[in-house]
Amino acid sequence: MLKKISHVAFAVANLDRACEFYRDVLGAEITGRKFVPEQKAEVAFVRLGGTAKLELLAPTSDDSPVGKFLAKHGPGIHHICFEVDGLQQKLDFLADHGVKLVDAKPRRGAEGDQIAFLHPTSTLGALIELSEDSKSAI
Amino acid sequence: MLKKISHVAFAVANLDRACEFYRDVLGAEITGRKFVPEQKAEVAFVRLGGTAKLELLAPTSDDSPVGKFLAKHGPGIHHICFEVDGLQQKLDFLADHGVKLVDAKPRRGAEGDQIAFLHPTSTLGALIELSEDSKSAI
Repeated sequence: MLKKISHVAFAVANLDRACEFYRDVLGAEITGRKFVPEQKAEVAFVRLGGTAKLELLAPTSDDSPVGKFLAKHGPGIHHICFEVDGLQQKLDFLADHGVKLVDAKPRRGAEGDQIAFLHPTSTLGALIELSEDSKSAI
Repeated sequence: MLKKISHVAFAVANLDRACEFYRDVLGAEITGRKFVPEQKAEVAFVRLGGTAKLELLAPTSDDSPVGKFLAKHGPGIHHICFEVDGLQQKLDFLADHGVKLVDAKPRRGAEGDQIAFLHPTSTLGALIELSEDSKSAI
């Protein structure tokens, strides 16, 4: 069901500083930045070798999902995203198995793919996102 | 410097229950389990497609790194591990750039590779492990 890790996302307070750390200290490549208005957040994409990427998420408002996460937990790993095929069917399967969903229907993610979040109370505490490449969606 | 994500590790309270969730609900493959005495923890390895894996970590003692993490944060994503070449040189480079290290020297990880942890106060709050395949170590 889970094809692979799509990306791991980090909540950061200052996106410029986070990009500098990943680029200049860890030696990773920052491939782009994007404002995501529906999340009131700015995201930077970090490319590594292998098939999984990183995202750095900074809130543009305290009243945003990432802003609230930072206030509660401080900076750190925010969520993990797994790529799947047939996202709607997967969500229906998970709901049938008692998994609480943040998004019962897929919605458009920052990179144009279809995404949905599962609720951490149903996933052993981890915030899990599922994504499906919109080109392969039914 | 960072070649790829080696694995993402989750802290869980009950390893049997976590393995059931990942296998039966998320449909991932559990490839093995191992007791890691120096960490007072048991780890289960989860294989996905792509190049990055998952690890599920459960403490065998409250007085262990994962036990303390669970007591402080509850279950969730515990750390991310990046594969590198030349681990000792990377640690020296990071120390020279002001990054606080948990392990200034590589030590042997659960899968026999050489590993070292960086301190989250120096890495924007995320617990980061670096690993080097011991076959490629100098």
